[in-house]
Amino acid sequence: MQYKKPMMIGGALAVMAMMPPVWASEPIQPITPVKSINLGMVELGKKLFFDPRLSKSGFISCNSCHNLSMGGTDNLKTSIGHNWNQGPISAPTVLNSSLNLAQFWDGRAKDLKEQAGGPIANPGEMGFTHELAVEVLQSIPGYVAEYTLVFGTEKIGIDGVTEAIAEFEKTLVTPNSRFDQWLLGDENAINGTELAGYKLFKASGCVACHNGSAVGGSTYQKMGVVAPYQTTSKIEGRIGVTGKDADRFKFKVPTLRNVELTYPYFHDGGAATLKEAVDIMGRIQLGKQFTDEEKVKIVAFLKTLTGDQPSFNLPILPPSSDKTPQPKPFS
Amino acid sequence: MQYKKPMMIGGALAVMAMMPPVWASEPIQPITPVKSINLGMVELGKKLFFDPRLSKSGFISCNSCHNLSMGGTDNLKTSIGHNWNQGPISAPTVLNSSLNLAQFWDGRAKDLKEQAGGPIANPGEMGFTHELAVEVLQSIPGYVAEYTLVFGTEKIGIDGVTEAIAEFEKTLVTPNSRFDQWLLGDENAINGTELAGYKLFKASGCVACHNGSAVGGSTYQKMGVVAPYQTTSKIEGRIGVTGKDADRFKFKVPTLRNVELTYPYFHDGGAATLKEAVDIMGRIQLGKQFTDEEKVKIVAFLKTLTGDQPSFNLPILPPSSDKTPQPKPFS
Repeated sequence: MQYKKPMMIGGALAVMAMMPPVWASEPIQPITPVKSINLGMVELGKKLFFDPRLSKSGFISCNSCHNLSMGGTDNLKTSIGHNWNQGPISAPTVLNSSLNLAQFWDGRAKDLKEQAGGPIANPGEMGFTHELAVEVLQSIPGYVAEYTLVFGTEKIGIDGVTEAIAEFEKTLVTPNSRFDQWLLGDENAINGTELAGYKLFKASGCVACHNGSAVGGSTYQKMGVVAPYQTTSKIEGRIGVTGKDADRFKFKVPTLRNVELTYPYFHDGGAATLKEAVDIMGRIQLGKQFTDEEKVKIVAFLKTLTGDQPSFNLPILPPSSDKTPQPKPFS
Repeated sequence: MQYKKPMMIGGALAVMAMMPPVWASEPIQPITPVKSINLGMVELGKKLFFDPRLSKSGFISCNSCHNLSMGGTDNLKTSIGHNWNQGPISAPTVLNSSLNLAQFWDGRAKDLKEQAGGPIANPGEMGFTHELAVEVLQSIPGYVAEYTLVFGTEKIGIDGVTEAIAEFEKTLVTPNSRFDQWLLGDENAINGTELAGYKLFKASGCVACHNGSAVGGSTYQKMGVVAPYQTTSKIEGRIGVTGKDADRFKFKVPTLRNVELTYPYFHDGGAATLKEAVDIMGRIQLGKQFTDEEKVKIVAFLKTLTGDQPSFNLPILPPSSDKTPQPKPFS
């Protein structure tokens, strides 16, 4: 019978080709890598993303809190900023952040470029100013040369700096998760428990907010729909942007892509484990008390959302020159 | 005459082959990459080097102060540690540190393995303990699996952890600098100014301490032989290890490899630029006041010592498990 196998497979493939893809009928779509990208700008942005000279101290880079070795976050409840300042909120992952409807938990930045300027000038984060950061970069011949190649001018501006960082960040998508392989038709990519978890995820209503290719990131929702969220955090979310009372405690729904790597969870980092996060979400958003078995299944499903992590050489940064202003970590 | 050229080149090569290599008669030898290395241990050590979970805060890794994007140092006068502690001394580069006779400025660690344990348990650096660091790693399934592969036991120990970090650090040599190309016989690898700088470096006596393949790192010498070094630093160097009065202000001579990247200079980071460092060294170590022209030449030579920087993919760290103790950045 061996000679017939190829024909059978061929026949099966022919049938599959006529069928709509799995994901077409699912609320979650596969990640697609970015389609139009400026590679020179990406290389410049990658260096800037890793460069602590964008901070007053010379110690904190974008990668400090959005650590690409650790799922694009710092895995801390709230971040550490200039002078060991305790940040008010948990750093969201930079992975797949290009898929978000807006940036920051409250959506106050319309895109990655606008976001990138925020932490540099935040006294509690990188503690610098846009003007001083640009002055530092302008004093570094390697950056001036690369900036000139990319932007056609040797006069560095914060606009180009944040645009380059954003262009790099657009490359930080994580395709090829086991769940995406399943969505693309590989039935064996996830096991029975994981599939049961996905079905539960859909049937329980999680998918109402966590959908699309980012499995989230596309709407603002109230944290605590059915019951109030217990937290000591004073952060009120979207109301800070809109001023509308209805937006109190509304936050951008976080992506669940790579959620296995992005602990602790929620805007206050209040849930240490996925199991705890699923339990809390069930109770306060859906009015459901998941059983232990249900939580195990949903968590198993969530872990299938870990995709290929960004893969690139550690960037080597151009050295400062004799004219570069010194970092000021202790003043 | 074109047909004769290959013969002439062949003849020249034949003559060169009989001549001793340039470096055999020079006080500086080329960097040679490490010859016997355990690649599995290197991969484990690379992850550990980049893992901030070896610190109490979960924020500081080896790479924080020995940043491989920045010449293996932090480019700060003195480093930032746990709770923004201001360190007492300037972080030496980890690049080519395997070539040092011992580790730390005062040589208090006999090798890289012994060094690696220091910062983890230093309250002002990573602020952790060896026991707690090991407990964290032991709770991470990805580390247990990799450790078992490398060391043949699933019981993680600080001994294996520091051995793996050291093994990775041994790979951080920087061959192929322009000066090494010159040492290996490429006359055009450095220009006339750079060669003049090297001749001056030798003739002035710099080479008495800065020699060998690391251009330093092989002896302890007093900082301030001819005139005292002006500093507010209270660090006294080697005397802290030996207790001998003769070792007051003695420090391990730093490598000058990649010195273009490892600013600011000296144990207190007191010299911001290479020109300033050369000036101070001339005056307090050699009793020479270099002219501006001489300093330009020596600095030009020093910049030829920048070698190939370590090139590898940013490591992706194994995620914590539900049992992993939480980092404690603010307590």
